Amino acid sequence: MDKKEFLELFEKNELKLIREALNLMNAVDLASLLAELSDKENVIAFRLIEKKKAAEAFAYMDGEQQEMFLKIFTNKEMKEVLDSMYTDDTVDLVEDMPANVVNRVLENLDKETRIRINEILRYPDDSAGSIMTIEYVDLHEDMTVKEALKKIKRVGIYSETIYTCYVIHDRKLLGAVSAKDLLIHQDETLIEELMEKNIISVNTHDDKEKVANLFRKYGLLAIPVVDSEQCIVGIVTIDDAIDVLTDETTEDMTKMAAMNPSDESYFKTSVFTHAKNRVLWLLILMLSATITGTIITKYEAAFQVIPILVSFIPMLMDTGGNCGSQSATLIIRGLAIDEINYTDIFKVMWKEFRVAILVSAALALANGLRIWLMYQDFKLALVIAISLIATVIISKLVGCVLPLVAKKVKLDPAIMAAPLITTLVDTCSICIYFNIATFIFKL
Amino acid sequence: MDKKEFLELFEKNELKLIREALNLMNAVDLASLLAELSDKENVIAFRLIEKKKAAEAFAYMDGEQQEMFLKIFTNKEMKEVLDSMYTDDTVDLVEDMPANVVNRVLENLDKETRIRINEILRYPDDSAGSIMTIEYVDLHEDMTVKEALKKIKRVGIYSETIYTCYVIHDRKLLGAVSAKDLLIHQDETLIEELMEKNIISVNTHDDKEKVANLFRKYGLLAIPVVDSEQCIVGIVTIDDAIDVLTDETTEDMTKMAAMNPSDESYFKTSVFTHAKNRVLWLLILMLSATITGTIITKYEAAFQVIPILVSFIPMLMDTGGNCGSQSATLIIRGLAIDEINYTDIFKVMWKEFRVAILVSAALALANGLRIWLMYQDFKLALVIAISLIATVIISKLVGCVLPLVAKKVKLDPAIMAAPLITTLVDTCSICIYFNIATFIFKL
Repeated sequence: MDKKEFLELFEKNELKLIREALNLMNAVDLASLLAELSDKENVIAFRLIEKKKAAEAFAYMDGEQQEMFLKIFTNKEMKEVLDSMYTDDTVDLVEDMPANVVNRVLENLDKETRIRINEILRYPDDSAGSIMTIEYVDLHEDMTVKEALKKIKRVGIYSETIYTCYVIHDRKLLGAVSAKDLLIHQDETLIEELMEKNIISVNTHDDKEKVANLFRKYGLLAIPVVDSEQCIVGIVTIDDAIDVLTDETTEDMTKMAAMNPSDESYFKTSVFTHAKNRVLWLLILMLSATITGTIITKYEAAFQVIPILVSFIPMLMDTGGNCGSQSATLIIRGLAIDEINYTDIFKVMWKEFRVAILVSAALALANGLRIWLMYQDFKLALVIAISLIATVIISKLVGCVLPLVAKKVKLDPAIMAAPLITTLVDTCSICIYFNIATFIFKL
Repeated sequence: MDKKEFLELFEKNELKLIREALNLMNAVDLASLLAELSDKENVIAFRLIEKKKAAEAFAYMDGEQQEMFLKIFTNKEMKEVLDSMYTDDTVDLVEDMPANVVNRVLENLDKETRIRINEILRYPDDSAGSIMTIEYVDLHEDMTVKEALKKIKRVGIYSETIYTCYVIHDRKLLGAVSAKDLLIHQDETLIEELMEKNIISVNTHDDKEKVANLFRKYGLLAIPVVDSEQCIVGIVTIDDAIDVLTDETTEDMTKMAAMNPSDESYFKTSVFTHAKNRVLWLLILMLSATITGTIITKYEAAFQVIPILVSFIPMLMDTGGNCGSQSATLIIRGLAIDEINYTDIFKVMWKEFRVAILVSAALALANGLRIWLMYQDFKLALVIAISLIATVIISKLVGCVLPLVAKKVKLDPAIMAAPLITTLVDTCSICIYFNIATFIFKL
């Protein structure tokens, strides 16, 4: 059902038909539909949905809508919704809501959950601990498959995933066993025989980007989170890992285009916040670019004598910027998906140097020939060709080295992208250009 | 075990210790370790690994290494490895190998698998069909939970996932049931009562990026692929969806930096291929930038009289380029993750226009004041301030409109990024700048 169909039925007061249609939809689509309705329609529609699905749809809503509902929920409704949510979603909720709403939420949670949520809230924002959930299935190594399946039948409904179960002894994580293994093995098999002992786990304080990359590398559905004593404190599930991967990529791209990343989507971010996120870097880069300008004025004599020299400035600047950002982009992405490390720096530089030779030769030849033919001026063609070669080589080297150095000194490599590289490379290319011109034209 | 430990044991001929250590490792790490060894060590190590794990590690190797092994495998070894691989991995293998290796691979597959692989190979490269696998569990609506679990016990080992099972009648897809539901419900419950009827499925020819986005949106572990008659032909699993998401993002970033994307990782791509992927766009952009240069020569008279005008060219060009690429990046990313659509074009333009007003006001004020104070020249400050405002507004509008238009005409929005936007905006900003200067200074 879409908004139009809903409003048609709503106008005719066909609540029974609406209820049927709503309950056929899945929770994600329900949340999107509700987001398009007015607050009044929203509340009526929500109360027509069966409880379990309504609670699920609630978890998929954005902050504003959740806040609206939390303000009008009766205590009973709030309890129902909160009880069916997994801890990681409740944590997100508590982080997003204003204080008065948070208080009501916490009052409606049982004491144990409240304590656990407070623990999770204490982990740093970017850590594995902050995105984990505590609803997992734990097994014992001397259980049989039959006993394990029985336990899953009992507690599975409360677990965010049952597809990887964790084998625990005295809170220590011994191993993991997949539901697939439980289902295809005989009832009397011992968990000890089935469990994988050499498992991938993360520490509560590990960076969540590292966690997400482990999912990708090893094709996992869940990763256990352990504390410094190797005791399991929670799990991260693949849906959250995908969200982390998507958000981190968006953040990287935003930074690479010289902006501060926003927590919200494009349309949810206000005009003022957009402007604020963009203006700082623009100011810094604008003022840095005036350095290049100041350098140009030093060569006033040169372009007073040969004014056409000025006309090649944009071409050289753009080519330098583009070459640098090509290299920087490849390195930043390689670092993000763990294909390149700081230790590869000399390998990368040597590769970029050779690429730069090939690329600059092609560009110098094309543009040199063009200028020679157009202006019948061999010296001018030579100045441009040599400047291009030097600019390309320097740009590629600067472009590949800066992100690696940033990574080494624990800065985000993504800020060493096109805009900053362009500004840096501009200055170099202008200096090279006018020096070569002064030398060849003997100015 | 890492390479160093392996080589130490290998030198001492401690094959038993090597075997133990290798068999403790997981398949992904095994594949990475083998990749670091020489061909000879590689083969010895591989034959020490237990069959099932060796076959799994084989699936994680890169093309070169797989080819090496396929060339030296006995028919028996090849059969063992191929039998334990899922169809989607075998398809990848067949696509990557040279013809003579492919022939040997096909000879060692049973007839049915050969036919199915040939079918999958016929789907377009970017389609859901090309990344699907055919090993899934199918159930019948009148089975009980007990019967379903029994079937999973029998066929589960051959299935890539058992966590979502598909309910099929006469090859038509009726619904899906999760292993979780099977495990937490009573033995006598009918599948019909448990199955979700309103399921997300994709068509064989749907774009694989669309498929990957559905995984993200709905938090799924597998999506069924159906043909035009709603008959199920395969499934896509989440590990493949994550690979698609990662590859598509890398491709987008590469295109956004004016390069042709490469199929291989940074280091696997040869210097020549790197150069080839980068030079075409550089040539196009370089020659386009000469247009800006030609325009500058038209205003020779202006900068002959006031040479300092030239020194602001880099600052204006860079600011325009940066502003445009900020907007373009946000829109390209929004389109990729389905947050923005072509129909939003006027909403986007209005938003970017207001952001541009705020940002340009700040930049114009900062730079105008600086120039006024430094050069004591109010007219010059005014020229720069007005040029900045106009440049920022135009850049932001060009930056947001072009990716949306590209999407509309079925081009990849990612090519409408920083480099192209910069070149386009350069021309505009230079024209605006010199016109305003000519007007205010009455040149």
